[in-house]
Amino acid sequence: MMSDTAGPIAIFDSGVGGLTVAAAIARALPQEGFVYLGDTARLPYGTKSPETVTRYAVQATRALMRFQPKMIVVACNTASAVALPVLAAAYAPLPVVGVVEPGARAAVAASRQGRIAVIATEGTVRGGAYVRAIHALNAQVHVVQRACPLFVALAEEGWTHGAVPELAARKYLSDIFEVETPPDTLVLGCTHFPVLVDAIRKAVGPAVALVDSAETVAREIASIVRASGSGAGPAVHRFLSTDAPERFARVGSQFFGAAIDVAQVELVDLSA
Amino acid sequence: MMSDTAGPIAIFDSGVGGLTVAAAIARALPQEGFVYLGDTARLPYGTKSPETVTRYAVQATRALMRFQPKMIVVACNTASAVALPVLAAAYAPLPVVGVVEPGARAAVAASRQGRIAVIATEGTVRGGAYVRAIHALNAQVHVVQRACPLFVALAEEGWTHGAVPELAARKYLSDIFEVETPPDTLVLGCTHFPVLVDAIRKAVGPAVALVDSAETVAREIASIVRASGSGAGPAVHRFLSTDAPERFARVGSQFFGAAIDVAQVELVDLSA
Repeated sequence: MMSDTAGPIAIFDSGVGGLTVAAAIARALPQEGFVYLGDTARLPYGTKSPETVTRYAVQATRALMRFQPKMIVVACNTASAVALPVLAAAYAPLPVVGVVEPGARAAVAASRQGRIAVIATEGTVRGGAYVRAIHALNAQVHVVQRACPLFVALAEEGWTHGAVPELAARKYLSDIFEVETPPDTLVLGCTHFPVLVDAIRKAVGPAVALVDSAETVAREIASIVRASGSGAGPAVHRFLSTDAPERFARVGSQFFGAAIDVAQVELVDLSA
Repeated sequence: MMSDTAGPIAIFDSGVGGLTVAAAIARALPQEGFVYLGDTARLPYGTKSPETVTRYAVQATRALMRFQPKMIVVACNTASAVALPVLAAAYAPLPVVGVVEPGARAAVAASRQGRIAVIATEGTVRGGAYVRAIHALNAQVHVVQRACPLFVALAEEGWTHGAVPELAARKYLSDIFEVETPPDTLVLGCTHFPVLVDAIRKAVGPAVALVDSAETVAREIASIVRASGSGAGPAVHRFLSTDAPERFARVGSQFFGAAIDVAQVELVDLSA
C-alpha cells in the first residue's frame, strides 16, 4: 500500500507542537527519514472552524506530496479530528494516520474503570472526535471533555512549570477530578500538552493514567512501516515552516527534545 | 482627502481585540458607520513575521475597499507596527491610521518623568515601532519593552480577573517595575490587553499611568472625520470575519462591550 517505500514519512501540524510526535516517530523508527511541515503562519487551528482547518490541512498535504512520502501523519489533533476522512479519500491508497484514533485506543486500554477525561483544543472538543472514537471501541465508557486553549499559549511561551500552569491546570480540571468517582484516565488530546505534564499531574493527582498520543501514534506508524518493508534510505529529517524559520527552530526545539538548526528549516507558502 | 465622505470607517484587526478600538470609535463618532474585519482564520498576527503580517494586512484592506470606506483604521498593533507604510502607499490618498503613533503620543503626554514601558505582542516588540514612535516625539524618553503573548490567550479565554492573570502579569512585569526608578507610564500596546487592566494594575501599582491606544486612536479619527465633514449616513455597524461567525460574535461581544448578533457577522475569504 506504500506509494514509495524509500520515501520519507510526511508529518504535518498547525505549528511546532507536532514535533513531539515527530520525535516519538524518530525514536520508534530511527532508520526512517521524515519531512515535517508546521503551518505556523496560520496557527493555531484549535480555535478555527472545521471548514477552515480542512482547507488548511489539504493545502499542507499537497505541499508535502512533492517529497513522495510513504505515508501522511496528521500530528495535529484538531486536524485529525476534522480533516482525516477528506485527506484519506483524496490521497488513497497512501496511508493517512491521525492522532485521535491511536489516542482513543490507548485511553481505552489504560482505563480500568471506564471513565476517561479528554483535554484538547476548542475545535477538537466541539467536533467530539475523541468521544466518537472511544465509544466506537467501547460504548460503555463514560467520557468527559474539556477545552484547555490556554495550555497551548503556555506551552508556546515556555511557561511549562510553576504557579501559572499549575493554577491554570487546576482551573480547567479541578471540577472534573474533584468528584466522588473521577475519571481514571486523562487523554492529552493536543500535541502541545505533554510539555505541561507536571502541572497537569499536580491537578489530577497521582492515580490518574495520562495518555499522550505521540507515543501511541509512533507505535502505530512503526507497525505500518514494518509491515510494508521500510526503506533503507538515510534518516534525513527535514522541516518546513509557513512562517519565521527562526522562531520555528527556537520554539520547536523544546517540543522536538533536540536542537533544530534554523538552516534545516525551509520557508514554504501554502496559499500560492 | 476623503474618498467618499458618506462611506463607512473601515477597521481591521487580526481578530476580535480591535473591537475595543471599534467601540471607542463608535463612542467618539456615534453618527458614523463602520465596517470591521477580523482575520480570525489566521490570528494571531503577533507571533508571525513582518512579511506574513504585511501580506495579510494587504489582503484585509483589499476586502474592505468594496465598502468604499472614508478611511482605513489598522486596529491591530502588530499590523500597525509593520504594515502601515505599505498600506498608506498603496491606498493614498485614503487616510490609513494605525494605533502605534496615537499610543506613542498619548504615552509621551502622560509621562511626567520620561520613563515609559510598552507591553505588546512578540511581533510588535521585535519590530520596535513603539520605541521609534516615542523617540521621534522625544528622544530623551527611556523606553523599556516586554512581549506578553500569554495576555492574548488569557483575554481570548475570558480569564480576565483572578489569580491566573494576576500571576501572569506579575511574572511579565515585576522585574520592570520593582526597581529604584520604575517607568511612570505603561502602554497597553495590544488591543487585547485593556480587558486585563485590573490584573495589570495590581502588578504595576497605583502610581503608573496606563495608556490604552483605543481611546487615543478614536480621538484622532474623530478629528480627521470632523475636519473633512462627516457623512450623514445612518450609523450602520457591519462585521466581517474570516472564520466562524459564531465564535466572532461570542468572543467579540466582550471586547466590543455590547452584544454582537451572529446574524450581523459575514464570513469572508481573504485568500481567494
